[in-house]
Amino acid sequence: MRYGVLGTGQVGRTLGGKLVELGHEVTLGSRTKDNPVGREWAAGAGAAAGTFAEAAAGAEVVVNAVAGQVALAALEAAGAENLAGKVVVDVSNPLSFEDGEVRLSPVESDSVGEQIQRAFPHARVVKSLNTVNCQVMVDPGRVPGRHQIFVCGEDAEAKAQVTELLGEFGWPADRVLDLGGIQAARSVEMWLPLWLNLMRHFGHADFNLELHTPR
Amino acid sequence: MRYGVLGTGQVGRTLGGKLVELGHEVTLGSRTKDNPVGREWAAGAGAAAGTFAEAAAGAEVVVNAVAGQVALAALEAAGAENLAGKVVVDVSNPLSFEDGEVRLSPVESDSVGEQIQRAFPHARVVKSLNTVNCQVMVDPGRVPGRHQIFVCGEDAEAKAQVTELLGEFGWPADRVLDLGGIQAARSVEMWLPLWLNLMRHFGHADFNLELHTPR
Repeated sequence: MRYGVLGTGQVGRTLGGKLVELGHEVTLGSRTKDNPVGREWAAGAGAAAGTFAEAAAGAEVVVNAVAGQVALAALEAAGAENLAGKVVVDVSNPLSFEDGEVRLSPVESDSVGEQIQRAFPHARVVKSLNTVNCQVMVDPGRVPGRHQIFVCGEDAEAKAQVTELLGEFGWPADRVLDLGGIQAARSVEMWLPLWLNLMRHFGHADFNLELHTPR
Repeated sequence: MRYGVLGTGQVGRTLGGKLVELGHEVTLGSRTKDNPVGREWAAGAGAAAGTFAEAAAGAEVVVNAVAGQVALAALEAAGAENLAGKVVVDVSNPLSFEDGEVRLSPVESDSVGEQIQRAFPHARVVKSLNTVNCQVMVDPGRVPGRHQIFVCGEDAEAKAQVTELLGEFGWPADRVLDLGGIQAARSVEMWLPLWLNLMRHFGHADFNLELHTPR
């Protein structure tokens, strides 16, 4: 498959690297054409680098790996025409920093996942992977146990396609929990404050949750 | 121990019933002295019922089991003088219902746990148990696996005392995660939207999370 990964930060590079490793064609997109981080990473990884628009234009699947607060700007730069009809996997969290504290914006009555779906009604947005560190995203075996990952979105076929991608990353289908429509993005984005406290508690980011239930 | 459980709803009655079963003295508190639900429950359970103030006055430990949105009002009725120096276990969630949707208020930049601690600086507030259904609170064996429960609060001794109470309920100490000060109440209250989506996903409330980590 041809993937356009938007964002040259750690999340974008980690996802892009894993996708290359799995045999996919990857273009890492950034705000500027000549972003040196993107260029250098692409040269080393056997991938391409370009603008957000270039990354999205050639892609079959677009991954939003920029920070939640700039997701809409990145996707606008990518261009609605380059997203239409495509699966857009949103792995972002809307973290902001106010008075030295981590906050979410939007929170609770909206989410980045919904913002993206509203702004690009012809994109097939699936929220996933934002509940774990990027190293766990692409290598769930770093964490022992039958821990789980979520998907939500309006398009069942798009969710099935993302579930397949998650399978390639190492998440078996029976550990992928479908939370329903894109509005559920609110609830997985609101997991972040607890995730941050748990990271402080454990002293590292190699953890994830398993839901236990008797039936 | 003498417990004052504030709230005659399902959460208060469930916690009160378990405490009686464990051999504790329980007074269930309500807004009015002659609340028939409280009276009837107390008669059947071998407990007492009274006003919020009566329940708190005679108690060594106070449990806030009213809805988060009315927690401050209930505790004001209980009386600061009846809370001073005592452990106050806050198990509530600030659920509100707007436009047919569940919302949290406060959310993210504040929490019920913090509101209570600010309003009653001499109470030793511990947030706990709000992340599971009340039947799971008092009977974690309903859910298989090494799932966990959180505590947070400013007073280490109070948290140790609540951890002991959780042990009586069936939560071993190594499944009690201390998230730090009372500000962490924000993060466990923000778990609720995901909890609600998971309840829809599973079709019941008998579930809880286990955090997996390699170290």
